Amino acid sequence: MKCRKCGGSAALELRRHNAAFCAPHFLEFFRKQVAEAIHKHRMFSRDEPILVAVSGGKDSLALWDVLIEDGYQTAGLYLDLGIFEYSQESKAKCVAFAAARGQTLHIERVVDAVGAPIPDVQRATRRPTCSACGLSKRYLMNRTALEHSYPVVATGHNLDDEAATLFGSVLHWQMDALPRQSPALPSTHSKLVRRVKPLYQLSELETAGYSFLRGINYIVEECPFSKGATSLAHKELLNRLEEASPGAKHNFLFGFLDNARVAFERLEDVSLTECSRCGQVTTGEICAFCKLADQVKSRALTPSGPPAAG
Amino acid sequence: MKCRKCGGSAALELRRHNAAFCAPHFLEFFRKQVAEAIHKHRMFSRDEPILVAVSGGKDSLALWDVLIEDGYQTAGLYLDLGIFEYSQESKAKCVAFAAARGQTLHIERVVDAVGAPIPDVQRATRRPTCSACGLSKRYLMNRTALEHSYPVVATGHNLDDEAATLFGSVLHWQMDALPRQSPALPSTHSKLVRRVKPLYQLSELETAGYSFLRGINYIVEECPFSKGATSLAHKELLNRLEEASPGAKHNFLFGFLDNARVAFERLEDVSLTECSRCGQVTTGEICAFCKLADQVKSRALTPSGPPAAG
Repeated sequence: MKCRKCGGSAALELRRHNAAFCAPHFLEFFRKQVAEAIHKHRMFSRDEPILVAVSGGKDSLALWDVLIEDGYQTAGLYLDLGIFEYSQESKAKCVAFAAARGQTLHIERVVDAVGAPIPDVQRATRRPTCSACGLSKRYLMNRTALEHSYPVVATGHNLDDEAATLFGSVLHWQMDALPRQSPALPSTHSKLVRRVKPLYQLSELETAGYSFLRGINYIVEECPFSKGATSLAHKELLNRLEEASPGAKHNFLFGFLDNARVAFERLEDVSLTECSRCGQVTTGEICAFCKLADQVKSRALTPSGPPAAG
Repeated sequence: MKCRKCGGSAALELRRHNAAFCAPHFLEFFRKQVAEAIHKHRMFSRDEPILVAVSGGKDSLALWDVLIEDGYQTAGLYLDLGIFEYSQESKAKCVAFAAARGQTLHIERVVDAVGAPIPDVQRATRRPTCSACGLSKRYLMNRTALEHSYPVVATGHNLDDEAATLFGSVLHWQMDALPRQSPALPSTHSKLVRRVKPLYQLSELETAGYSFLRGINYIVEECPFSKGATSLAHKELLNRLEEASPGAKHNFLFGFLDNARVAFERLEDVSLTECSRCGQVTTGEICAFCKLADQVKSRALTPSGPPAAG
C-alpha cells in the first residue's frame, strides 16, 4: 500500500476513506480532521482557554496533544475516580504528559466530592455500572470549568464512542438522550459550560494510530468496571457492520447528525434552575449529583477490593 | 416447563414474554395477538373483504389461516415471480391451502405485468437484489386489490421482518422510509388501498410455531435470491441482541412505533398523482413500476438459469 499523498510506503490504511497514508501524512490528515470538527461546530476560538478532560487513555491525550501543537490555550483536567491501580496508573500518565509539555493539570478526586471512591459509590447505589461514574464525571468537569473560568470542556470521545452511544439510544429510542447527542453542546445556562468533542470524526483505530506515531505514553488497560458493559457489546456489533461495509459507523453517526437529529429536538425548552444544595444546574430542586452523594453518605460502607475477574 | 395458563406441559417457550404455553394455549395466545393488532390499528372490520398476500411461506399462510378461522371475509393473492422451482412450489402450496379451505385465490404473474420474470428483471436493471421484486409486489398487490374492489391488503410481515427493516432504515437514517414504517398504512389516495400487517407483534419463531401446530403445509425454502441479502444480515445481528437481552427486538420496534415515529412524520404531505401511463398512484409523471417495465423492454434479454450456488 502506498500513501495517498506522497506515494511513499503507507503506515495506516483507512478503509472507510478508501485511503492509506505514510506516518507524516496520517498525522496531517488527523490534525485536519480535528481542525475541521472545531471549525464546523464553532467549538472554540484561539482566544478561549479550553479545559481538556483527560483519562490517561489514547483518545483524550491525543486530543490534548493536537490542541497544544495547534497553539490553543489548554489545561488538562484529570478526575481521580479512585479505582485502585487503574486510577493510579492513569493519573501518572496524565501528570507525566502535562509536565513534559509544561501544561497545567487540574486534578479532582471523586472521593472528596461525593464522599467515596467509584467502587464504593457503585455499591451504594442501584444505578447500572458506569452510570454513577458518568454522572460524577460530567458534574465535576462542569464544576471545575466554572471554578477556574474555562468557558468550554473538550472530551476525547471518538467516532466509535459516539456511534455506540447513538446505537444504544436508538435501540431503546431514548427520546431524552437523542437530541443531546452532538459533537458540540452549547451552554444553555450561565452555570453550564459548553461541551465539545473534537475527535468525533476520527475512529478508535485512528486515535490509537495518532498516539502511537506521536509517541504518547498512554494507559492501554481499560477501566476494570467496563468489562461486560453494554457499550462495549454495541461497539463489537458496530464493528461487524463496519467489517461487512466500511463506512457503516460513519454513515450511521453522520446520517443522524446531518438529517435525523433535528427531528428529535424538543419543541419546548427544558427549564434549568440551580440546585438548592450545591448551586449547580439541574432540572429539579436538588441535582442528581447531590442525590448520589446523599445515597453514598446514608449507607455505612465497608472498604472494597477490586472487582472479581471474569 | 409448564404452560402459563393451564400448568400442562409447555410446547413453546417465549423468552421475551417470560412465558411458556401448551399447544392449545399457544394458539390462543397467537390469535389474541393478531386480534389485538387488528383492533389497535383499526386495520379492517368484519364487513370488509380483505386481500391476503400469500407467498406460500409460514408467515402469510399463518395470517390467512387466523383470519379465516376468526370469520373474516378473505381472498388470497399469489404473485408469481417466475423464480424457477421456488415459484412453482410456493404457488402449489398456496393453491392447495386455498382449495382445502374453499377460498378464492387470485394469481398474478410478474412476467405478464412487467414483461419478464424476476430473474430477468434483476439482470435488466441496476437495482439491488430484492428491490425490483419488492417494487413489483407492492404495485401488483395494489392493482389487484383495486381491480377486485378489496379496500385493504394484508401481508404476513412479522416482528423480525419489521425490526430488520427498521434497523436498515436507521443505519442509513432514511428519512423517507422511517415515517412509512407502520403496521397500518392508510389510504392517502382513492387509488391506493390500505396496507396492514396483522402479525407485526409476533416473532418469526412464533409464526413458525403456529404453522407447525396448525399443520399448515408451507414452503420452507427461502427465495434463492435472498442469499446474502442485507436484511438477512440485519436479522442475524438483531438475533444476537435478542439472545443477550430477550425483548430487545420488541423494544426496538415498539419504542419506535410508540415514541419516535411521530418525530419523522413529514410536516408537509407528499402530493400524489396518477401515472400517465398506467393510471396507478405516483409522486411523479410516470410511476416507478412503468419505468422498471420500460427498462426491461429496452434490453434484449437472453433466458437465464437459476442463480449460482454459494
